[in-house]
Amino acid sequence: MDTVKEEIENDYGAFIDKFDLLPPSKESLPPLHGLTFAVKDIFDIAGYVTGFGNPDWFKTHVTATSTSPVVLSTVEAGATCIGKTVMDEMAYSINGENKHYGTPINPSAPDRVPGGSSSGSAVAVSAKLVDFSFGTDTGGSVRVPASYCGIFGIRPSHGVISTSGVIPMAQTFDTVGWFARDPKIMNKVGHVLLPLSPTGIIPPRRVIIPDDCFKKLSFQGDHILKALTPLIIKKLGGYSLQHQNLGDYLSDEVPSLKDFVVQNPGNLQDNSIESLSALSRAMRLLQRFQFKNNHGDWVSTVKPDIGPGIYERVWESISSTNENIDKCLVVRSEIQLALCSLLKDAAILAIPTVPGPPPKLFADVASLESFRAKAFSLLSIAGMSGFCQVTIPLGIYDNYPVSVSLIANHGDDLFLLNFAEILYAAMIEGR
Amino acid sequence: MDTVKEEIENDYGAFIDKFDLLPPSKESLPPLHGLTFAVKDIFDIAGYVTGFGNPDWFKTHVTATSTSPVVLSTVEAGATCIGKTVMDEMAYSINGENKHYGTPINPSAPDRVPGGSSSGSAVAVSAKLVDFSFGTDTGGSVRVPASYCGIFGIRPSHGVISTSGVIPMAQTFDTVGWFARDPKIMNKVGHVLLPLSPTGIIPPRRVIIPDDCFKKLSFQGDHILKALTPLIIKKLGGYSLQHQNLGDYLSDEVPSLKDFVVQNPGNLQDNSIESLSALSRAMRLLQRFQFKNNHGDWVSTVKPDIGPGIYERVWESISSTNENIDKCLVVRSEIQLALCSLLKDAAILAIPTVPGPPPKLFADVASLESFRAKAFSLLSIAGMSGFCQVTIPLGIYDNYPVSVSLIANHGDDLFLLNFAEILYAAMIEGR
Repeated sequence: MDTVKEEIENDYGAFIDKFDLLPPSKESLPPLHGLTFAVKDIFDIAGYVTGFGNPDWFKTHVTATSTSPVVLSTVEAGATCIGKTVMDEMAYSINGENKHYGTPINPSAPDRVPGGSSSGSAVAVSAKLVDFSFGTDTGGSVRVPASYCGIFGIRPSHGVISTSGVIPMAQTFDTVGWFARDPKIMNKVGHVLLPLSPTGIIPPRRVIIPDDCFKKLSFQGDHILKALTPLIIKKLGGYSLQHQNLGDYLSDEVPSLKDFVVQNPGNLQDNSIESLSALSRAMRLLQRFQFKNNHGDWVSTVKPDIGPGIYERVWESISSTNENIDKCLVVRSEIQLALCSLLKDAAILAIPTVPGPPPKLFADVASLESFRAKAFSLLSIAGMSGFCQVTIPLGIYDNYPVSVSLIANHGDDLFLLNFAEILYAAMIEGR
Repeated sequence: MDTVKEEIENDYGAFIDKFDLLPPSKESLPPLHGLTFAVKDIFDIAGYVTGFGNPDWFKTHVTATSTSPVVLSTVEAGATCIGKTVMDEMAYSINGENKHYGTPINPSAPDRVPGGSSSGSAVAVSAKLVDFSFGTDTGGSVRVPASYCGIFGIRPSHGVISTSGVIPMAQTFDTVGWFARDPKIMNKVGHVLLPLSPTGIIPPRRVIIPDDCFKKLSFQGDHILKALTPLIIKKLGGYSLQHQNLGDYLSDEVPSLKDFVVQNPGNLQDNSIESLSALSRAMRLLQRFQFKNNHGDWVSTVKPDIGPGIYERVWESISSTNENIDKCLVVRSEIQLALCSLLKDAAILAIPTVPGPPPKLFADVASLESFRAKAFSLLSIAGMSGFCQVTIPLGIYDNYPVSVSLIANHGDDLFLLNFAEILYAAMIEGR
């Protein structure tokens, strides 16, 4: 005993200060006790074939022998998983229509699509069948259906939550996200799965409003998006606001985007934002390339039956080359740096989640493609940077759900979810 | 009640399968119950001035009002923090000598330096004063002292553990790491702080041995490093080994490294590896630039008293420009992709942690610089890619501690720590 004491007193010169920080002694229920959830049919559940939204995939794959760690962690934290949900085929859509398993009904707008690819998970939450649900978001597959179904959704910072036991779509974009009606539940799930936030759990010091994104990116000049800015600004009263055109900022700070500017944008309308269109092109190119590496062999061999729109995209991917992939990676490095600088010192960027209300069911492929292009201008900001984004429902406007998105720095997911909760509480009060 | 039931039966087409995954019901002690730890004097502890290893920094900064989240989480998980430890000034060294607060004594080699910049934290663990301790690793500040003091150390994947409440050195490299004598404790701390591993907790499918790193990078032709390869290979019996020259691989796969090749390397010896020297140059350039942005104003204003070696580096940083920073970012993108491809399908890369035994105390600056350059060729692999690295003590060889490092893909920290534990157990048995 004396030897140990002596050794501690002779501290090898290692210490500069000594003190005791003691652990608390408390007992409590697990953090997700009593909550139910559902998972997209892209997560492995032991004993089930993971279906990936397509019957040919189901038929050609074996039963999963283990459950994906994110689902296990959630169950260990006290929640009960009640089932797996319908999704878009191979996760290659943001629309939510599935010709094989049926299109889940959007409870907030039954004549409109639910959004995808995590369609069933969004619907299960919106219809109050579960308290929360998991989806995946590669290009927008959580953010879009959350917005369309009038609920909360998060695309976490890339890489912070395990995608083990989840079928990959495009790895350097794939994220596990979740939906809920209640921002407190969004946060509770976050506290189980997310690492600590470097910025801490504080209110943002600035909120950046990119006026161009609200004014120019509306689909076919839709008035809702234009009405959103004053609405958001009113709700944000009390926060330090900074108005800034994001398109101009990215043109200056991400010089490599010039490689992806298309001078004759074809089906894009005049009110697109050049640098954001370029950003979304780089994103789609990278995703297509990674999708091919993941699933090219299976698609070429099995030649699966795939619904319209998705079929074309899948085969376009299979025939893509690695041309310009290196340039896409430079864009990614540059936009990470540019957004890091823009959002430093605890700032948040507010953007529309989507360019307008959910498209009609059974719309033609061409009009969906045009909407899709606009949507990706917005979705690629978090997608290419790997930063975290949460979409907040703002209620019903002209019969359809509207939303706003907040984006924060990589790793600042809990900082972001905390602000979403505070902001939503203020909105409810102000109604 | 009936309405609820009906609503659940009418499931909006959201589900593809229904079942129940129930949470377990168990009560247990917190995971780090009964363990003690210490923290480097770079972490904020409420009520103390964070000293950053330099008395002028201490004098010009105020008492921290909150404790850094990583320390709080560890305390909440049941461990007791017993003090803060000596570090190299401004974290700008891997040597461990501090002229103001004294150089902590290396318990494994008292005539040699302890390694830095997390010198006191490594010594506190090596001397059995605590069960584990926290350091930070920007350029090698956990890996190097762990190796010199004969203990385990981890540099986690960049971005997965919060650096909030930690003085920044160079943000896009800064990581919070930890030391322990027992790999089980390394793992326990990891399970509290780290996200789930995408690869899962499985043994690696391949271990890559870059023979060039073991054969060519030894300092002054030191024989220990050359003896290490057969030793490692013996220990790895049973794993699928892949011998591959890392230098050649990186020359091919990271073309932008050519911008950082110096044709006349001056004090570098012939047995350097060109692509790794180039990689370490890009890393040092980026770190210098970020350090200047963080601390340039303070250094220019306060003109602090700083010890030899560190003084020169700090002022060299202050006078640096942003020239070539964009090229460094391209190197980073390319090496991330190259290593991702090399380490895909659950592979691990084994390298020497350092180029030889710990340098003598009070060595001259010139010979330390030469050693430092060789060390950075090895340290920049995880540094520039952001991948995780763990160093494993192999015991005493010719009177000095020797070690080997394992590197895994970004986010695969728990996969890596699990393998370190398995491998170490096999080593102990085989002794």
